Amino acid sequence: MKKLINDPSHVVADALRGMALAHPELRVDHDKRIVVRSDAPVQGKVGLVSGGGSGHEPMHAGFVGLGMLDAACPGEVFTSPVPDQIVAATQAVDGGAGVLHIVKNYTGDVMNFEMAAELVAAESGTEVVPVVIDDDVAVQDSLYTAGRRGVGVTVLAEKIAGAAAEQGRPLAEVADVARRVDTNGRSMGMALTSCTVPAAGHPTFELPEGEMEIGIGIHGEPGRRRVPVAPAREVAEMLVEPILADLDFASGEGVIAFVNGMGGTPLIELYVMYAEVAAILEKSGVPIARNLVGSYITSLEMAGCSVTLLKADDELLRLWDAPVRTPALRWGV
Amino acid sequence: MKKLINDPSHVVADALRGMALAHPELRVDHDKRIVVRSDAPVQGKVGLVSGGGSGHEPMHAGFVGLGMLDAACPGEVFTSPVPDQIVAATQAVDGGAGVLHIVKNYTGDVMNFEMAAELVAAESGTEVVPVVIDDDVAVQDSLYTAGRRGVGVTVLAEKIAGAAAEQGRPLAEVADVARRVDTNGRSMGMALTSCTVPAAGHPTFELPEGEMEIGIGIHGEPGRRRVPVAPAREVAEMLVEPILADLDFASGEGVIAFVNGMGGTPLIELYVMYAEVAAILEKSGVPIARNLVGSYITSLEMAGCSVTLLKADDELLRLWDAPVRTPALRWGV
Repeated sequence: MKKLINDPSHVVADALRGMALAHPELRVDHDKRIVVRSDAPVQGKVGLVSGGGSGHEPMHAGFVGLGMLDAACPGEVFTSPVPDQIVAATQAVDGGAGVLHIVKNYTGDVMNFEMAAELVAAESGTEVVPVVIDDDVAVQDSLYTAGRRGVGVTVLAEKIAGAAAEQGRPLAEVADVARRVDTNGRSMGMALTSCTVPAAGHPTFELPEGEMEIGIGIHGEPGRRRVPVAPAREVAEMLVEPILADLDFASGEGVIAFVNGMGGTPLIELYVMYAEVAAILEKSGVPIARNLVGSYITSLEMAGCSVTLLKADDELLRLWDAPVRTPALRWGV
Repeated sequence: MKKLINDPSHVVADALRGMALAHPELRVDHDKRIVVRSDAPVQGKVGLVSGGGSGHEPMHAGFVGLGMLDAACPGEVFTSPVPDQIVAATQAVDGGAGVLHIVKNYTGDVMNFEMAAELVAAESGTEVVPVVIDDDVAVQDSLYTAGRRGVGVTVLAEKIAGAAAEQGRPLAEVADVARRVDTNGRSMGMALTSCTVPAAGHPTFELPEGEMEIGIGIHGEPGRRRVPVAPAREVAEMLVEPILADLDFASGEGVIAFVNGMGGTPLIELYVMYAEVAAILEKSGVPIARNLVGSYITSLEMAGCSVTLLKADDELLRLWDAPVRTPALRWGV
């Protein structure tokens, strides 16, 4: 295992120390293991909390800041955050207007966020609404999931719902925006290589030279099929076609097209992929209204990528364009 | 070779197609192989041009935009841009106030930028001043370089000189700012794995399991020594100590500390490294004024990192903080 880490059991704690030092505009509570906007709670604003296993950086802590999340609770690597973390994050961002939980659809995450919401309601009466993201068209059920897995749409939902919250909209509306993003978004990913959970010390799965996995999950969960390595053009087809088959993206104002790197894939390859994805969408009559190219929801050092499309109306596009200032996404301020 | 590419000989052209589609605010001339700010030439503003081999993305094309570069000329992977590209870029950004060339110290780059400057002067009389970046403390001469190699400081020089040009300063002053950044900046890198140039199809060098290369160059040029893989804490020492030994960083207003990923290293590890770098600097009495953590000057899919320190006075910090809007660095606008 070749990694820039100290003790494999301290990776998350060490990375959070680095985040706190690099981003003094965030408040990192190392005991409670939460990352919070320094001006939280913002009175009268709906609080946005997300979280999940670590190993997907910059998601979620890198999305904490103005116009996006109010707090993130990172679990151990590829392990759900515990309810206590989620409770602490929820209470830290409760500005009196309720709190939205954005939860990726993994059984442990859903369960722990639910438990935390009940604890918070019992303790302080804070209203919590969860929105579960389940956008991965690759497989119906999976290793850690009943139903579809939550992947790339999570990034878009956090940005767009974050903008809605920043505008002062009430909890029901912010939750509705997040749900609309989930309903209108689809993703599919692939891997060229496996990844190694530090505490395990060996690759999560084996992927021989010359093969790739289509439909991979962000924890290395099995995908749809294993095929010989192919040109980017064909990889793009294998990812985009199932997405287009799942939802009518051609109607409407256009899509936000998001080509995401899995952690070990360099930007030059993501731009090659984006060109191929854009060509397929053009051929399919799907206009691209906005795009995002980069490594935003990763799987440790896995090489590979995912494609996410979000069918966006004018309102979602305006919320996408709204100012955001986080470590990983920043524009307009 | 596992890469998200089509034909290995078309990687740069394909990636530039992707960049053009993803960033309509840039003007990509696919024939001349240059990436230009869409509002170039800006009348009365010094033009900033940089370039070098591809494979280091987002450098340089990802730094084209307001407050940073006016144009980039990407060569083939790990290959200097040809003089014609540099001439085209220089002429495209000539707003009447002269053009600054920011050149990483590799023999081919220096030679081709020199030749281009002579051609431009002869053709149009445009004044061109080159500033050569040579910040890598690892080795004196190297595979492609007489003198020190140009690495991480290039990113900081492009940002800071770009801000000076945006303020309307004359060419001599902008060049002086870039030279001050080079004079006051030092870097050192390391690799956990090799990388594969697409056209070659095999790793540039061999790095067995359990070993890492300290002092690596951004093209996989040999470093100072090959040692057993060590904890992040020790890796940070191996990179920071030679930098601190080379220049007195403790005097002055503080440093811009830049922990850079080599392309295949995920963000979680870069934050682990940043925590260790910050700890060493604190122990050494070197205050950190600003920081940058991410993969900005890469070596294809190489796993590893580099550390860059820039001793910054108030003026350099103000220029660092100035607004920038490029695909890869963006704040304040």
